Amino acid sequence: MTIYEAIHHLIEDIKASRPLIHHITNAVTINDCANVTLAVGASPVMADDPQDAEEMTAHAEALVINMGTLSERTVQAMLVSGKVANKKGIPVIFDPVGVGATSYRMEVAKILLHSIRFSVIRGNSSEIRALAGIESNGRGVDAGDSMEDVATIAKHLAEQHACIVAVTGQKDVITDGRQLAEITGGHPMLAQVSGTGCMTNSLIASACAVTKDHMSATITGIALMNRAGELGYARLQQNEGTGMFRVRLIDALSLMTKEALQEGGTILVR
Amino acid sequence: MTIYEAIHHLIEDIKASRPLIHHITNAVTINDCANVTLAVGASPVMADDPQDAEEMTAHAEALVINMGTLSERTVQAMLVSGKVANKKGIPVIFDPVGVGATSYRMEVAKILLHSIRFSVIRGNSSEIRALAGIESNGRGVDAGDSMEDVATIAKHLAEQHACIVAVTGQKDVITDGRQLAEITGGHPMLAQVSGTGCMTNSLIASACAVTKDHMSATITGIALMNRAGELGYARLQQNEGTGMFRVRLIDALSLMTKEALQEGGTILVR
Amino acid sequence: MTIYEAIHHLIEDIKASRPLIHHITNAVTINDCANVTLAVGASPVMADDPQDAEEMTAHAEALVINMGTLSERTVQAMLVSGKVANKKGIPVIFDPVGVGATSYRMEVAKILLHSIRFSVIRGNSSEIRALAGIESNGRGVDAGDSMEDVATIAKHLAEQHACIVAVTGQKDVITDGRQLAEITGGHPMLAQVSGTGCMTNSLIASACAVTKDHMSATITGIALMNRAGELGYARLQQNEGTGMFRVRLIDALSLMTKEALQEGGTILVR
Repeated sequence: MTIYEAIHHLIEDIKASRPLIHHITNAVTINDCANVTLAVGASPVMADDPQDAEEMTAHAEALVINMGTLSERTVQAMLVSGKVANKKGIPVIFDPVGVGATSYRMEVAKILLHSIRFSVIRGNSSEIRALAGIESNGRGVDAGDSMEDVATIAKHLAEQHACIVAVTGQKDVITDGRQLAEITGGHPMLAQVSGTGCMTNSLIASACAVTKDHMSATITGIALMNRAGELGYARLQQNEGTGMFRVRLIDALSLMTKEALQEGGTILVR
Repeated sequence: MTIYEAIHHLIEDIKASRPLIHHITNAVTINDCANVTLAVGASPVMADDPQDAEEMTAHAEALVINMGTLSERTVQAMLVSGKVANKKGIPVIFDPVGVGATSYRMEVAKILLHSIRFSVIRGNSSEIRALAGIESNGRGVDAGDSMEDVATIAKHLAEQHACIVAVTGQKDVITDGRQLAEITGGHPMLAQVSGTGCMTNSLIASACAVTKDHMSATITGIALMNRAGELGYARLQQNEGTGMFRVRLIDALSLMTKEALQEGGTILVR
Repeated sequence: MTIYEAIHHLIEDIKASRPLIHHITNAVTINDCANVTLAVGASPVMADDPQDAEEMTAHAEALVINMGTLSERTVQAMLVSGKVANKKGIPVIFDPVGVGATSYRMEVAKILLHSIRFSVIRGNSSEIRALAGIESNGRGVDAGDSMEDVATIAKHLAEQHACIVAVTGQKDVITDGRQLAEITGGHPMLAQVSGTGCMTNSLIASACAVTKDHMSATITGIALMNRAGELGYARLQQNEGTGMFRVRLIDALSLMTKEALQEGGTILVR
């Protein structure tokens, strides 16, 4: 089976089984996360209180934990939900938003990493470097970035936590610690809309909900977002900018076909 | 006066008096609720802290309480706001989002139902069944659904709480415990966008703010959303999906005319 | 240098330096604030917990404090962030949303005004009157509005707090206590979309981040929003209403040119 065949199967399985994706996520992009989850045929639910979250996770087929806006209350919800997910074998996707930026975020990331087994960790280059830094020297700020490239850091982090690590940006790198996938494509305008990273988490989670092959699921989520970015941009009309791009991005996700996806950027697994 | 005449009067009265609609609602769809409230000519305000909410409700012409994302803080705000609304005769619309899903939501729904007199309770079929179950056997999970259809359950709940109960879905049922209205129409794509139920609450509340006939007000809110769904879908152009549908839905609400509304699905009151 | 030349320089400087704009803002329009910040080329970040906010502000080039939805937790975050911003010379933009509406909002506004030196205070006419009232008589409700026009009140408030005060509405007034700028233009539909005031804060903050001339920066932010409103409306097509207006507003911001801006309403500084 080629990677494209794997992706098509996952996309069809999401639509067929409509998995419930529990998000404990930030206030900024929570609506976009709900709408992209629906766009690919899964079912979003949000509950971020410790009293509510644990039981909600138990009903879900995947859990997204996103550090975009934190408080003690939501961190507690992340911990109880993460633990019940681990107990029940529900995949957990972790987005360490802004982890290098404040000591509180570093501290929370550390606690989460040590309390929860994640299936997938997805971040941008500086977030993944900061996460790796927590482990290597406790400082977390771009530790060792002069010496090693981000793929090496991602591989090491993936090995250490026995999970998939995805670094998204101009080029995307996905690794399970052994294999390395590189995805090209997407569009620079994806960086001019808030939350395209967060939305990618929802896509990855929707795919993880229907397979145990989380490497393929992560590739699927990222490839979907990249291709939707290309199509969303291509479909912009005169005088349409970033506002309409965001709308056409969700449109492209909801209308994605096998053929349209395959015409996008390359996926290289080695 | 036909039901359509009643609806037209309510829509005109909203635009003429611009009622203030206080929402204590979830973080996911709060922006959409604000924008649809504005789209029909009412004025939204959101305040979800106990220190702030009570006084805000006292200024409002209607209050929406939505359980989509709960915390102790916002539940306290719901309680103080609901009580002041009852004292001042301000209609309160209740959306028991996900009430069957967790014991915390069941507990909160129970407390709210016993502390606040609601004017309208709106939910989907499983939420209304779960609410009815709280009353009948304390379990809340689809109690008795093998025996009774949802209209019967809704009627019973409406009688018990002396309020309007609306069950929205493929077909919508609205009852005050005696009369039963059925609305057809709408579009399946309404289920592929997050928050169309929450937005319907805002429309119902806007109508309840300008009449004491909450049965007609509830019909108005639901008929508006259904027709906007039909028009929003009809106006989609090539390569437009769920992202644009959501935009065109709000467009249709903001541009709705008497004639456009009347060409939609049927409203049957018996 | 004419005011238009000053504005063009600021817009170019934002794009060149991509300043980080920290928002502690309401849950309703937080996503729109992030997206307009990106639309003009700046970089948004949101962190509203006292444990997280102080350090985040220290990295930022401007801070927005918006009272739209308050809680004890976020008020604490506003205080610690405001103080660190003052210490480091980071400009702070204050939006006293709904300050006249509840005693809690009055109390919080009072504490913020006495604890933080603001660079810019922006509100609508009744909010600025209410703020002025706190100072003059502690009541805060449209104090003295029968005697003085809003420009006089704004000038007095600006003098008292040694900051820029902007009153936005059908006509916009900006003052540093001595000079007075009046901006015409914009479009009435700006009032039919939630959060255009909040989004204006983000634009003002983005400009304040790249200049010490906060009078020009405030004029820039407001002129941008006004012109985007005009263009957004002009670009509406058949059957497009407030939903699409909001999208085309952000489009217009992201595509704004020197020429397009200058063709808008007048800016009069005296």
